[in-house]
Amino acid sequence: MEQVGVAPMLFTTEEYAARLGAARVRMTEQGLSALIVTDPANIYYLTGYNAWSYYTPQLVFVPLEGEMILFTREMDANGAFRTTWLPPESIVGYPERYVHRPHLHPFDWVAYALRARYLIAPAAKGCVGLEMDAHFFSPKGYRSLVNALPEWTLVDCFELVNWVRAIKSPTEIQLMHQAAVFTNLAMHAAQDAIEVGARQCDVAAAISQAQILGTAEAGGDYPAIVPMLPTGESADTPHLTWNDKRLQPNEAMIVELAGAYHRYHVPMARTFMPGKPTPQLTHLAGATDHALAAVLETVAPGIPVQELSQVFNRTLFEYGYEKASRIGYSIGVGYPPDWGERTISLRSEDTTILQENMTFHLMCGMWMEGYGYEVSEAIRVTDTGVETFTAFPRGLVPAGKAGAAASESITLLGNPGERAVPGGPGLDALPQPVTEPRRPATERFGFTNPDEDTMTGSLRIVPRNAERADRDPAGPPVAPVIPTTTNPTQEETP
Amino acid sequence: MEQVGVAPMLFTTEEYAARLGAARVRMTEQGLSALIVTDPANIYYLTGYNAWSYYTPQLVFVPLEGEMILFTREMDANGAFRTTWLPPESIVGYPERYVHRPHLHPFDWVAYALRARYLIAPAAKGCVGLEMDAHFFSPKGYRSLVNALPEWTLVDCFELVNWVRAIKSPTEIQLMHQAAVFTNLAMHAAQDAIEVGARQCDVAAAISQAQILGTAEAGGDYPAIVPMLPTGESADTPHLTWNDKRLQPNEAMIVELAGAYHRYHVPMARTFMPGKPTPQLTHLAGATDHALAAVLETVAPGIPVQELSQVFNRTLFEYGYEKASRIGYSIGVGYPPDWGERTISLRSEDTTILQENMTFHLMCGMWMEGYGYEVSEAIRVTDTGVETFTAFPRGLVPAGKAGAAASESITLLGNPGERAVPGGPGLDALPQPVTEPRRPATERFGFTNPDEDTMTGSLRIVPRNAERADRDPAGPPVAPVIPTTTNPTQEETP
Repeated sequence: MEQVGVAPMLFTTEEYAARLGAARVRMTEQGLSALIVTDPANIYYLTGYNAWSYYTPQLVFVPLEGEMILFTREMDANGAFRTTWLPPESIVGYPERYVHRPHLHPFDWVAYALRARYLIAPAAKGCVGLEMDAHFFSPKGYRSLVNALPEWTLVDCFELVNWVRAIKSPTEIQLMHQAAVFTNLAMHAAQDAIEVGARQCDVAAAISQAQILGTAEAGGDYPAIVPMLPTGESADTPHLTWNDKRLQPNEAMIVELAGAYHRYHVPMARTFMPGKPTPQLTHLAGATDHALAAVLETVAPGIPVQELSQVFNRTLFEYGYEKASRIGYSIGVGYPPDWGERTISLRSEDTTILQENMTFHLMCGMWMEGYGYEVSEAIRVTDTGVETFTAFPRGLVPAGKAGAAASESITLLGNPGERAVPGGPGLDALPQPVTEPRRPATERFGFTNPDEDTMTGSLRIVPRNAERADRDPAGPPVAPVIPTTTNPTQEETP
Repeated sequence: MEQVGVAPMLFTTEEYAARLGAARVRMTEQGLSALIVTDPANIYYLTGYNAWSYYTPQLVFVPLEGEMILFTREMDANGAFRTTWLPPESIVGYPERYVHRPHLHPFDWVAYALRARYLIAPAAKGCVGLEMDAHFFSPKGYRSLVNALPEWTLVDCFELVNWVRAIKSPTEIQLMHQAAVFTNLAMHAAQDAIEVGARQCDVAAAISQAQILGTAEAGGDYPAIVPMLPTGESADTPHLTWNDKRLQPNEAMIVELAGAYHRYHVPMARTFMPGKPTPQLTHLAGATDHALAAVLETVAPGIPVQELSQVFNRTLFEYGYEKASRIGYSIGVGYPPDWGERTISLRSEDTTILQENMTFHLMCGMWMEGYGYEVSEAIRVTDTGVETFTAFPRGLVPAGKAGAAASESITLLGNPGERAVPGGPGLDALPQPVTEPRRPATERFGFTNPDEDTMTGSLRIVPRNAERADRDPAGPPVAPVIPTTTNPTQEETP
């Protein structure tokens, strides 16, 4: 195996060359003669460079022809060779005194360093692409480049490298399968730890330990997001982390986590129920599981991602629910604060066509008022259908060590390598919703802009996860109707 | 205790009012009639809002008079009341369809929502401040505001709220003392886990578990940075995380971590030596400890922070070392990827005067070529001197459970509540440096810009942590000389 610094290379030089080549094809299509890459996940993808150094500015200069150059803080540049395959002469450190200074920015120095290498003029032939919406690329850094390089016409590259990352290589899939092993271990650790009286931090500690410890054969990497544990009433909100409160009897605890291996992520969400769920939560869980199963049944190369969203909402609609937010997103390499790739979203406005070896977190979060349910699967689009990366019981999962043993008998809806089958466990026996219709979020919280939709010409979106006020919550399920919100033809196009 | 949502408020409304008042004093001084706050640490500081939602755009509008308004993604706005003290009408969610869309940005919507509330004109009386160098405020978000609000004159607020955070309240100090308990626990967990044959991930898992588990009385929060474990030869680089390689005999392992409690951080770095150190590492450790002790002896209200840097380098210089990078930074509230406040740096270019209840991570990292040493103390400036938040042996610390027991007898240089005393353990007996003079980093890695200093008019800085080539590395320590690089009067001012 080839070496990079002191470590074996994770990917072959051919694979790195293919990545760069794919980026350059897109650069040519977009009229770019150079690209400035600032997203740490994209830097890692192109160069292999991997360190917790992204809290100070760094970038990779990618010309259409010629060598890439990695610019980091000097103290990081000196050790960059330990993780990147770039030769030493392509790693440049900017001086320490540019760090956290009000009147300077490291990109002032970087711009001049590019200029002194005579790289400005060749790149001025076309436009130069910037990652305008990347984390860690600040407006100050942007203005440094604008001011220091007036010859350049700077344009948004629109997540160019992120889009190259969308389709995974066999090696990347292997890494994700290894990450999935950690995902399973961590979710089992959560299941063991969740019991009435346990503190949320106890559960988080067990998860974190399992995520990093990995197995005897391979150690876990840090996930881009810490465990999220919306619990009890606060399960109506997705991104709460943990506190040190103790789990009360009959409270559900949602766990969203990921296993990570060499920065590749496989996330999973489950809802644990150490006790007796309310009828409304049981109903919500059954409906959501059914909708997830219907989506898994639909996934295949050639299918538009918007169809997944439509299938999900159509199924949910039968039970009187609707979900306004996306039902998933592309996954792979991730750095805090996000393990998503920020490209493909599984929603009605997205027209991307599924291709083999795309990977997604199919994330079905239903955040109601005072309760909630989450279930998800990390999936790979195969040549004919879908593979889930993990196998863990869905539904309201029993918790505690006893619960873990009991749940062995729960029907699995998705098994690695198998095509998922539709139908939630015991769904027919579920009671109907018992809650009051939910007020729209805009009514409960703050300002409603009556003209918001005329700003973009898009459809009015029904508030997220609302139980529809125009339906009788006590009535029987009816035949599916496609909600208007899932009709993409009425959506604006840029 | 007052309630916020379902949780007791961490700070009184008076304390929140004082924070906002202090921010507004600075706003007035800077000519700002409104401020746009995007840094999650600043949002938390002003509003208490705390969730892992900063991977999508969010901001707080702070007018010079009137109510603050928090804008987040709709799914997060619905649960924001669980952590912020802001009233529901001051929490506004932007629609889901603005998330990760190439032709839209959430701040397009936010700008219009501000406009429709008639808040643009009042804020146009002065300038409007932006956090131009905040993480998670992207150039795309910046351009959205610029384009949507042409009436506003936007200026950099230069970390306005970060500067308000520099001096801690008694409650904040209490929280940091609690975080320090977790810091100590986590470092002891590291010490127990580090032994020849242990994998780096085993150590990281033990640290992470201890950080989050906390104590029976209080649970730990997630730290803004994962454990960093530069090991063996790669200890010459500061920001490497971990892998699953096993610790070799006589390899040193650096551990940098923090305890966190309600987002307040107390970091610590130590270098563990499960075996026999090389003479050069022993010498480096003794010299660095001595320099750290000298700094601790100097800290007091009224002292300029640059003096701390001078004292450190003057002491190091006696042993033939020099450190180009800063020796610390202000700490407190932190979110990934940084637990520093991005305001005060302990270096020769910083003219800030120490004040009571400022808190710093006094971070003495010496990253040499093929080896390195780190030692640090989190400190509070008291009314007369300094308090260290933690008490953990310094020097090359023995590791493994046996080592942990042995290290109980090591002299502590800093104890909480006590003034640190100078002098490293057994320093007189240390051998002289045995290494070759180190090539400057610019010589080893890539491009050197001969005119780099004329760009800013600043002094030439000696490469980081270099053993000085102009000194005889085998010669005896000499009387301290102040290096020219620490003379602030020759530094440019903006």
